Amino acid sequence: VPSRPDTVFFLSDYGARDEFAGVVRAVLRRLAPHATVIDLTHEIAPFDVLSGARTLERAVPHLGDGVILAVVDPGVGSDRRGIALEVRGAAHRRFFVGPDNGLLLGAAEAVGDHIEAVLLRRAGAPATFDGRDLFAPAVAALCNGSDLGELGPALDPSVLLRLARPVSEQTTLTDGRVVRWREITWVDRFGNLQLHASPEELSPEEHRGPIELRFRRDDAGGTDERVERVVRRVTTFADLAPGELGLIVDANGHLALVAREGSASELLRLGAGQVVGLSEAR
Amino acid sequence: VPSRPDTVFFLSDYGARDEFAGVVRAVLRRLAPHATVIDLTHEIAPFDVLSGARTLERAVPHLGDGVILAVVDPGVGSDRRGIALEVRGAAHRRFFVGPDNGLLLGAAEAVGDHIEAVLLRRAGAPATFDGRDLFAPAVAALCNGSDLGELGPALDPSVLLRLARPVSEQTTLTDGRVVRWREITWVDRFGNLQLHASPEELSPEEHRGPIELRFRRDDAGGTDERVERVVRRVTTFADLAPGELGLIVDANGHLALVAREGSASELLRLGAGQVVGLSEAR
Amino acid sequence: VPSRPDTVFFLSDYGARDEFAGVVRAVLRRLAPHATVIDLTHEIAPFDVLSGARTLERAVPHLGDGVILAVVDPGVGSDRRGIALEVRGAAHRRFFVGPDNGLLLGAAEAVGDHIEAVLLRRAGAPATFDGRDLFAPAVAALCNGSDLGELGPALDPSVLLRLARPVSEQTTLTDGRVVRWREITWVDRFGNLQLHASPEELSPEEHRGPIELRFRRDDAGGTDERVERVVRRVTTFADLAPGELGLIVDANGHLALVAREGSASELLRLGAGQVVGLSEAR
Repeated sequence: VPSRPDTVFFLSDYGARDEFAGVVRAVLRRLAPHATVIDLTHEIAPFDVLSGARTLERAVPHLGDGVILAVVDPGVGSDRRGIALEVRGAAHRRFFVGPDNGLLLGAAEAVGDHIEAVLLRRAGAPATFDGRDLFAPAVAALCNGSDLGELGPALDPSVLLRLARPVSEQTTLTDGRVVRWREITWVDRFGNLQLHASPEELSPEEHRGPIELRFRRDDAGGTDERVERVVRRVTTFADLAPGELGLIVDANGHLALVAREGSASELLRLGAGQVVGLSEAR
Repeated sequence: VPSRPDTVFFLSDYGARDEFAGVVRAVLRRLAPHATVIDLTHEIAPFDVLSGARTLERAVPHLGDGVILAVVDPGVGSDRRGIALEVRGAAHRRFFVGPDNGLLLGAAEAVGDHIEAVLLRRAGAPATFDGRDLFAPAVAALCNGSDLGELGPALDPSVLLRLARPVSEQTTLTDGRVVRWREITWVDRFGNLQLHASPEELSPEEHRGPIELRFRRDDAGGTDERVERVVRRVTTFADLAPGELGLIVDANGHLALVAREGSASELLRLGAGQVVGLSEAR
Repeated sequence: VPSRPDTVFFLSDYGARDEFAGVVRAVLRRLAPHATVIDLTHEIAPFDVLSGARTLERAVPHLGDGVILAVVDPGVGSDRRGIALEVRGAAHRRFFVGPDNGLLLGAAEAVGDHIEAVLLRRAGAPATFDGRDLFAPAVAALCNGSDLGELGPALDPSVLLRLARPVSEQTTLTDGRVVRWREITWVDRFGNLQLHASPEELSPEEHRGPIELRFRRDDAGGTDERVERVVRRVTTFADLAPGELGLIVDANGHLALVAREGSASELLRLGAGQVVGLSEAR
């Protein structure tokens, strides 16, 4: 018999200025006093479900057993479903609670293949603060030993909303070189640009570097500027000169454009959602 | 015999950048290691007692038993009192610790009618960081089982400082319609404008809507602009079109001006402290 | 036999927007579930080791027993060492874990004279997120009862990197008055300017005040402006008129330039790293 979950991992777009996240923590404390809340972040940009989903996907491999509570919910009050998921493996047991808008599913699938889902049963109140009124009580019930099925009727996981995959395309230059077009999926606090690309996608020649980048961006006059730029493929920040740009494998196992003690995002004037072409430099 | 409090709810204007809140948490950990600290927010604007008090009032119905520590304290070092309050009911027992500047009283009165108060006994040190040196030790003493009376001499609650009530007035238009003038008491992260108004104040006709808003704001030239605007009275965000303004009952039971996936504050160029007139639309 | 540490004090430049600090907290929860994490701050400016070190020095006198985890680490991936320190006294036992870049040493020395140090043994992974992969596991090992020596080979503490001391000089005016030049080491959220100066450095006459300040700052035209200004030496904020500048002994026992319910930093247009001369006013 598995023991009761005693850890809640909490992510939201509630921000730090208002009391939203604090009130949800207080409700969890009241309903499941034995549980410890680990805040992942509450600074997801308001309503940015995609950014929330990717943050959760990056974090989830490092979380122990427990319940993941995630709330980025532009559709609160609509007919979007509130859901709870369970992913059970030989050695772990994870729950996810939040809105069915794509926020949870990618992270759940990163934990395991066998996902069970339920539709959270809603009490009478109109839905304006589901984190407090719907999701936190469901999380507390799981921490208090409820089975998933006690929270509501089962859902076929295949009906759950799924986010679009990031851009990942390939073209060939006239000289025969392959360009891999990859979306920037995250700009972190330090200005590092994470790409939707794993190191296995590069050829041995590309791994020896240098790498040619190509991308479009708005120039000062508001028109489209085409940029090509060559950077080194390095192992770690310290292989670069201060301020130099490079391509590394980051802490999540993705390719990332970085600068040593500087912001690659500022140096390249690129941000999340933009697409960068990677090819062997001539 | 009631058990020792084991939860501290902590609100301040200390911000996240400095170590103030962290040091107070560390002092609580040292003096009352069994207590769990639930941070409500530390991003109250510096010295904004009114905003702190209202945040606490909104949060307090959702807190379980424990000690509320609140520090927004422009008068630190003056002769303003440090106080502790106890509000005891049939089923709960709440303490409040902080400065006597109106920050605590509204929230305490929201919990119950029977309030006991004491003046915190001060040690010799000059007062520059009372959160650390005066309030946290008092909170820890309560968590360790001290009675309120052990913290200092009793105070008559009627001498405690009380904040002014928000604007709430009523005028009649020449066509006989009533205009309820209500103060905006909170702009949250999402730009929702909470009004000092409960849904019971609207007539059945007004609840069917639409509602006419009227307010003054500075226009671009710095002069006073009079604005009238009609919005729908809806149940939840999802009843609005994207970007549409509406009037809802929010998660605290107040009337609020909101926009779907947008900021009502930006759309109307209104903020906390401004006054909005509500009337039945012609 | 000392008991296992059960408290982790955590400071970093990870910020609140990304999940970095949350993932480190999750790793600690997984590896040392009995430990409570007390966040000091994660809003140290990116790569600002000096600010991180000073924040830790200010906080450390108020921390109980436990492990201090501090990560401000522009040299991640370089050959800079990862270290753990132990400072043991008659009544306490503190550990420090983080990079050997000066971040930890000042705070450790503030706790006690007898410091033991080890070089953290590194697993194979390339170093891009040492907070998660190197430091958190070391912290967890200490919480689980490991001795310092189990984490890696001993280091002579005299080889550890040490930050430069703040500016502290003295000149004499033609009229014989002494000017003490002291660096501004911290501007807090409220705009208070902490000086690298203790009250013992002032003469009895200076303590009676007023005090003459002199400093240089850029004027609007970008050239150097020399400013002299007289302020009162007061005991606490409340001795000042609203908006008035004064010199106080702050909550860390340092001299500080403050304004009542205002920002001394904005009023004087001064910030961290600038130097202010203090002398008896004529």
